[in-house]
Amino acid sequence: VPNQLASRIHGSVHIIGTGLLGASLGLALREHGVTVTLEDASPTALALAVDYGAGRERHEDDSQPGVVIVATPPDVVADVIAGALERFSEAAVTDVTSVKLAPLRELQSRGLDLTRYVGSHPMAGRERGSAIMARTDLFVGRPWVICRDTDTPAWVLSRVENIALEVGGVLEEMTPEDHDEAVGLVSHLPQVVASVLAGQLATAEANHLHLAGGGLRDTTRIAESDAELWVQILSANKDRLVSRLRALEHDVARFAEALEADGSRRAIADLLTAGNRGVHRIPGKHGSDERFVKLTVIIDDRPGQLAHLLSELGDLNVNMEDLRLEHSPGAKIGFAEISVLPEVSEQARHDLEQRGWRIV
Amino acid sequence: VPNQLASRIHGSVHIIGTGLLGASLGLALREHGVTVTLEDASPTALALAVDYGAGRERHEDDSQPGVVIVATPPDVVADVIAGALERFSEAAVTDVTSVKLAPLRELQSRGLDLTRYVGSHPMAGRERGSAIMARTDLFVGRPWVICRDTDTPAWVLSRVENIALEVGGVLEEMTPEDHDEAVGLVSHLPQVVASVLAGQLATAEANHLHLAGGGLRDTTRIAESDAELWVQILSANKDRLVSRLRALEHDVARFAEALEADGSRRAIADLLTAGNRGVHRIPGKHGSDERFVKLTVIIDDRPGQLAHLLSELGDLNVNMEDLRLEHSPGAKIGFAEISVLPEVSEQARHDLEQRGWRIV
Repeated sequence: VPNQLASRIHGSVHIIGTGLLGASLGLALREHGVTVTLEDASPTALALAVDYGAGRERHEDDSQPGVVIVATPPDVVADVIAGALERFSEAAVTDVTSVKLAPLRELQSRGLDLTRYVGSHPMAGRERGSAIMARTDLFVGRPWVICRDTDTPAWVLSRVENIALEVGGVLEEMTPEDHDEAVGLVSHLPQVVASVLAGQLATAEANHLHLAGGGLRDTTRIAESDAELWVQILSANKDRLVSRLRALEHDVARFAEALEADGSRRAIADLLTAGNRGVHRIPGKHGSDERFVKLTVIIDDRPGQLAHLLSELGDLNVNMEDLRLEHSPGAKIGFAEISVLPEVSEQARHDLEQRGWRIV
Repeated sequence: VPNQLASRIHGSVHIIGTGLLGASLGLALREHGVTVTLEDASPTALALAVDYGAGRERHEDDSQPGVVIVATPPDVVADVIAGALERFSEAAVTDVTSVKLAPLRELQSRGLDLTRYVGSHPMAGRERGSAIMARTDLFVGRPWVICRDTDTPAWVLSRVENIALEVGGVLEEMTPEDHDEAVGLVSHLPQVVASVLAGQLATAEANHLHLAGGGLRDTTRIAESDAELWVQILSANKDRLVSRLRALEHDVARFAEALEADGSRRAIADLLTAGNRGVHRIPGKHGSDERFVKLTVIIDDRPGQLAHLLSELGDLNVNMEDLRLEHSPGAKIGFAEISVLPEVSEQARHDLEQRGWRIV
């Protein structure tokens, strides 16, 4: 690759498992000039990832890879890691599975030498994933958790960290226990909640669903996730997830009891304000706790209007931090909810209104 | 108002309660040339709505309004409706409260003549609402539920329906029982779920929240709602909501039990796939079940880039049905997820790629 910046990666990288994560890693690393070889239990999935440009099949006379990345579903990850440690005797081996403790325990129980293994987890992905949704920038700016331990040699840690850095990840060091607690809360619990809530709709009357709005849609969006994959993820983290679910179940019951008991409005208000407090603790898009100011601009629902607005924002040198287009169902108008930094919001509002935009 | 289309509304409209809904109705009706008078228990709220252009204060010598709209919180709505029926003896009286059965029962228990009252509920609103967030198009294309009964005279029904039609609502006739069942499912249950889920974050460790992604954010967004208002809404619909909450609590418990019991992956998969089915039953933005094709286009995170994309979409005559901008936290790139009609998606993809856009 001409005009290439020097890559942090020495030697080739071998990726086992060519789903969304494996293929995206392959694409991203190849963009940086790294030699990537691929393997997958499914010849179809492998061929797809190769066609997609994520890497090439490994040949028998290929030299040993410097790093092996295991990107398989949780059920098979321990087996595949064990196999990789045996087959590639000089490589640092990592995995990118969404749970860290269960695979580690399984590997430890086999009495294997795990010196060359360090688990990791890039916080990136989408509801459904295969190689055709792969993208080179899936990991950019997202936390990439590394679970080193006291036995991890510097060269192993460094090789795996360099993979994360090369594809744009932000390193975050955690113990496997801490990682699994964290994802149990911020990823696995919301998944179960969204699925269970959406499950209540499965038998609802269609005319009741006509009244649905944006609140229901947002709350249930991730219920579209791949059930087969999530059975594995949730099962592998059950020791941490079950207590979260029990706490949630308990709070739902408290809510129901507070509603049943007249005069316990204080209890209902307490549960709702706890939710207010919790939602404000979620970091914004830049991984910090800063909150943006949202300007809601009225736009016509036809080609060119939003472009016109955004082009004016460009003229005004206003950088949007986020944008959400909200439609009234069936309407010919919409609302562009633009998030901007607090310090520029008043000027942006003023300038847009000067140019005739209606801000609500 | 010059060049005004003929309004469906005869006589003036009096609005009691000038929060988001009342003020938005006032603005929308005034835009159609209707005389709107306002009242609110809070002089500050009233002055704000008047300044905002939602209507004017009622004078003693004003003629009787043709319609009175009660837009107060649920706790006081029955009292205010009863008062309005007495004070305005020739008006049709409606309310726009999110629960319909409890206020009706309370009015009936007082032995009032309710001939001139018909309850209604526009499915419109936001997490937090006051007059300053009012907008004329809040109701456009949204369902507006009307709860007539066999005693409702045609002239009363017609006057209230005309209000809904004038501001762009889509009429939906339901019984109060059916309405409250429906909103219990599509609005009140998601509110409790989001609040309870977000409540679990209130005591979480900050470094665990660093790993949060879009799934958690979407699932908890409506947990920002106004606790004081929602206490009233949920309490007023408790008879329908409690059974929904118990069903959800039961399913959360089933989920936890399935996780605890090894070998019950089938049960976990069943709960997840029920969620898949449920989420696909939620109507899309045009109130139908049609689903759009999403094209995810890579854009740079700087002023002008998204405008450029959307301007090209305008050139290509592609009408977006929805747009979501997704940022990688801390990244200098983003993804514009554009929803288009299935029949134009392939051409749009081709045309955009021809122009150099990367679609993932």
